[in-house]
Amino acid sequence: MAIVNETALVYCENQFGLVDGKTASGLVRHSETYTVVGVIDSSLAGKDAGEELGEKKNGIPIFANLEDALGKLSTVPDCYIYGKAPLETYISAKERGFILEAMEKGMDIINGLHQFFSDDREFVHVAARNHVRIKDIRKPPKLKDLHVFSGQRSRVTIPVVAVLGTDCACGKRTTTVELNNSLNRIGIKSILVATGQSGLMQGALYGVAIDALVSQFVVGEIENAVIQAFDNESPDIILVEGQSAVSHPAFMGSFGILKGSKPDGVILQHPPARKYRCDFPNLKMPAVESEIDLIEAISQTKVMAIALSHENLSDQEILGHVANYEQRFQLPTTDVLSHGCRKLVQALCKHFPELRQKIKRTHVEKNRALAA
Amino acid sequence: MAIVNETALVYCENQFGLVDGKTASGLVRHSETYTVVGVIDSSLAGKDAGEELGEKKNGIPIFANLEDALGKLSTVPDCYIYGKAPLETYISAKERGFILEAMEKGMDIINGLHQFFSDDREFVHVAARNHVRIKDIRKPPKLKDLHVFSGQRSRVTIPVVAVLGTDCACGKRTTTVELNNSLNRIGIKSILVATGQSGLMQGALYGVAIDALVSQFVVGEIENAVIQAFDNESPDIILVEGQSAVSHPAFMGSFGILKGSKPDGVILQHPPARKYRCDFPNLKMPAVESEIDLIEAISQTKVMAIALSHENLSDQEILGHVANYEQRFQLPTTDVLSHGCRKLVQALCKHFPELRQKIKRTHVEKNRALAA
Repeated sequence: MAIVNETALVYCENQFGLVDGKTASGLVRHSETYTVVGVIDSSLAGKDAGEELGEKKNGIPIFANLEDALGKLSTVPDCYIYGKAPLETYISAKERGFILEAMEKGMDIINGLHQFFSDDREFVHVAARNHVRIKDIRKPPKLKDLHVFSGQRSRVTIPVVAVLGTDCACGKRTTTVELNNSLNRIGIKSILVATGQSGLMQGALYGVAIDALVSQFVVGEIENAVIQAFDNESPDIILVEGQSAVSHPAFMGSFGILKGSKPDGVILQHPPARKYRCDFPNLKMPAVESEIDLIEAISQTKVMAIALSHENLSDQEILGHVANYEQRFQLPTTDVLSHGCRKLVQALCKHFPELRQKIKRTHVEKNRALAA
Repeated sequence: MAIVNETALVYCENQFGLVDGKTASGLVRHSETYTVVGVIDSSLAGKDAGEELGEKKNGIPIFANLEDALGKLSTVPDCYIYGKAPLETYISAKERGFILEAMEKGMDIINGLHQFFSDDREFVHVAARNHVRIKDIRKPPKLKDLHVFSGQRSRVTIPVVAVLGTDCACGKRTTTVELNNSLNRIGIKSILVATGQSGLMQGALYGVAIDALVSQFVVGEIENAVIQAFDNESPDIILVEGQSAVSHPAFMGSFGILKGSKPDGVILQHPPARKYRCDFPNLKMPAVESEIDLIEAISQTKVMAIALSHENLSDQEILGHVANYEQRFQLPTTDVLSHGCRKLVQALCKHFPELRQKIKRTHVEKNRALAA
């Protein structure tokens, strides 16, 4: 919610538009903190970032490398964002060189990896020499500031809805951000609690990168973010970004989100065309049926809508899937990037009638203001 | 498995025999690394540690404080172990003073807290001055050495059994250690994978304190410990110590254990007399029925036996509970500290006939050796 956004160049070599480039795609779509002035991905140099995501042209150019970007941009951007979210923990020597180069050019470094650049002697040294800052988005709060579950979640009297998914990098954050924007536009004060580095980079005021937290504190930190959002913002609804999947063999973030936020409802994100789990080519995608059963078996909540990702699907195909899923699961289904959030908003209003009342009141007030 | 154990004094002020003193109780019962020469708890000064645990006299005295201990012991012990596992993250100023005092007396400090003493300037300084070491048991491996789930668990062809529980500090580790010892005694090579600081302090060669790990790596680190134990030891069975409870509102360690170790069977530990969760006086204990349902709903495994904890129960009462649970759940039930591990071993042999074969072979070999 900064008044003047910092400008940023987002590094996403060979991954823009792909699952491990999800941080970059997110920033290109929506950022309250940065104005993205370009993306670096030599495999797509010269293209428009919006079009490459299969959306409308957004005027954000894709450059071949840092030199190409700085040659074409009128000023050096404020920030160089490492915009990939790979499974590997460490960056390559080559990418290390690019980051040092960006610092030499006077850019702050924004990093969402588990590898903290601010703990790296060379990075710290070069940053100091060039008077630039390093921001490690995933760096957790200090131990003394971390929370254990307190039960205070029971004080939160407004609906809390989590957007969970059937896999990593399948559109949970995108749906959460789009739904949050839609709700706020129609007069429902919605606050987003981010649980990953990309959501925090996009400017979420509440939340923490849970996969980088000491595991003892994951549940308590999510609970605390929900309580803080409730106490500070007096919102009508809180949306909690999910992580990975309850069924995912490798990760347990979804359990932390269910335990910490105790959602009153769940929206389930799913990429129908995906056959194998992101980053795990030997792991088959789960069935939506079993994911819903699992979520409802381990929590006191219900899946109330399905959001599909159109990854590798034509417009026609996604429409077919929407119809098919609504029929099979008797749940409102949409793809928010193609068809917007109307059905999700309707689902929320059906389950939480107080939200419908709020929309009505906002309309009345608007009309009064117009009449006055 | 050290040849000569280090001697240790275990600090457990006001908590010995209670749930937050579980590290101390564990060390008094079983340690492959340390010879415990005394416990510090002024509320029980002069008592015998074994008797205070409701077991037979073990000759380990309880002292009022460090001065009392050093006055009565013939030599200064090698180590001072902080033997409490409180919910609070930080020790008090008073306890800090005791640790500094122990260092001044020349004792190494063994610490299982989230607060790492080796990151504390004063502790590091005083340790260096007194030529003593600080060992932070919960300190995780370096980021570069941490594992993400690889799927290699599928290579492990022997039974892997997890001891889960209905709450924290209810006897999971004790049952795991006792069962591991029993199995090895009858000729089944069993390897224990520890998942908490107390098990590691007791000398487990495999495992990691999962609540202190960055959450992204919990599943992969457990999987890796199981694979390492399998590859290095060629055991007949691997036992995995559980943490907290699948149903616990505050923690998610059990999910990591289920995902990482993918157990072929589960033994469920339960304290029948406990009404509210340990450290959470407002949270009621779950029903054993629902815990079993939850475990079996989220994993491809079955609960194959129940281990009860006799906490706050008379011998007569625990016998009644054992009979009642066997009747209700049709599962072998025991309290390993009162009645040993026979029923658990039988349950394992029933589910994994290869173990029964192994016992037979061991008998034949023993008899042959005796006849020779």
